[in-house]
Amino acid sequence: MSVNSPGTGAKRVRLSPADRREQLITLGVRMLREKALHDISVGDIAERAGISRGLLFHYFPTLQEFQLAVVRHANAEMLARTTPDHTLPLPEMLRDAVCRYVDYVSDNRTSYLALLRGPASADPDLAALVDATRGAVADRVLDAAPITLDDADLPRLRLAVRGWIAFAEETTLSWLRTATVSRDQLIDLLVESLPALAGHPELTAALGG
Amino acid sequence: MSVNSPGTGAKRVRLSPADRREQLITLGVRMLREKALHDISVGDIAERAGISRGLLFHYFPTLQEFQLAVVRHANAEMLARTTPDHTLPLPEMLRDAVCRYVDYVSDNRTSYLALLRGPASADPDLAALVDATRGAVADRVLDAAPITLDDADLPRLRLAVRGWIAFAEETTLSWLRTATVSRDQLIDLLVESLPALAGHPELTAALGG
Repeated sequence: MSVNSPGTGAKRVRLSPADRREQLITLGVRMLREKALHDISVGDIAERAGISRGLLFHYFPTLQEFQLAVVRHANAEMLARTTPDHTLPLPEMLRDAVCRYVDYVSDNRTSYLALLRGPASADPDLAALVDATRGAVADRVLDAAPITLDDADLPRLRLAVRGWIAFAEETTLSWLRTATVSRDQLIDLLVESLPALAGHPELTAALGG
Repeated sequence: MSVNSPGTGAKRVRLSPADRREQLITLGVRMLREKALHDISVGDIAERAGISRGLLFHYFPTLQEFQLAVVRHANAEMLARTTPDHTLPLPEMLRDAVCRYVDYVSDNRTSYLALLRGPASADPDLAALVDATRGAVADRVLDAAPITLDDADLPRLRLAVRGWIAFAEETTLSWLRTATVSRDQLIDLLVESLPALAGHPELTAALGG
C-alpha cells in the first residue's frame, strides 16, 4: 500500500464495481443515522469507505447522485421492513405493518427525520423520491382494501389514504420527540385512524371497525 | 428626485418607520403568491417598494429577518382567515373554519406550498414558526372541544389533532394539485375526519358524529 493511501489504515478490499457501489450506498444509509444528508461530505464518505475521493466520484460523479442513491435505498429499506404479511387477516395485517413502521422509524429516527423534515425534503429530486414512497405505501393500502378499482369513491379514498400517511408520519415523529403517549397508544391511534379517516363502510367493516 | 433614485419611477411616499415596515412585509407576502420565499431577492423587494437596498436593510438588517417577518405575517393571516366563529354550534363552527381554510389555501397556493413544502420548510427558524402556527390551530381545536384540560386522554388527543392538521395540509395541497375530488368532497373529508380520528366519545357526540 502506498504512503498516499487515504486516511486511516482501513483494510482495503478489492470489490466488484456493483459490490463497491452497494457498499458505498449502505455506508451512506448508515451515516444517515448520525447526521442529516446534507451534512455528509464527500470526504467523510471516502474516508469511512477507505477509498479515495477520486474513486468515490468514479461511482457517483456528483454528490447529488450519491444522495439520490442513498435516499432510494433508505426508502426501499423502509418499504421492505413494513411489507404487509398477507397471511394475516386484514385487521392484524394492518396492526403488524404499523408496528414494524413504528419500529423502523424508532431505529432510524435521525435519518427518517432528516428525509422527511430536513433540507432534503425541499430538494425537488429527493422530495420526489420520498413522495413516490408515500405513493407506494398508499398503493399497498388500497391493494389490500376490500374495494374494486372502479369504485366511484376511489379518488376520495386515495386522497384520504395519502392524508393518513401524512397523519402517520407526523404523529410518529411527534411521538419520538415528545413521548407523551406509550408506543401501544401510538400504534392504536395509527391503526384506528385508517378506517376512521377513510370513511369507507366496506373498509371499516373489513378492519373490524 | 436624484438620478440615482432606484428603478422604476415608483411614486415615493414618506411613511412612518412602522408603516414602512408594515408596507415591506405586506409586499413580501404579496410577492410570495408568485414566487417561493427563497427566490425573492433583496433587489426585487427594494425595487417593488421603490426604495433603495440601503433603506430596506435599515428595516431588516438581514434577508433572514425579512423572511421571518414575512412568514410570521403569512401565518397570522392564515390564522385570522380561519378564526372559529364561536356563535355557531360546534359542528357548523368546524365546517365554517374548514371552508375558510380551504379558501385561504386556494387563494394563496404558491406561498402556502412554499412555506409548507419549499426550502423554507427546512430552515429551522422558519420551520419553527410554521410549527408554532400548527400548535395554535391545535390549541383552537382543543379549546373548542368539550373536554377538560385534566382529561387523562389529552396527550393522545393532542397528538391526534396534530396528526389531523398534517392530514388537512396534505389532502388540501394534494387536492389543489390533482383536483380528483370536488371542493365539497374535500371539505366533507376534513370535517368528518376530525371526530373520527379523535376517537373521543364526547368530542364525536358534540360534533354530531
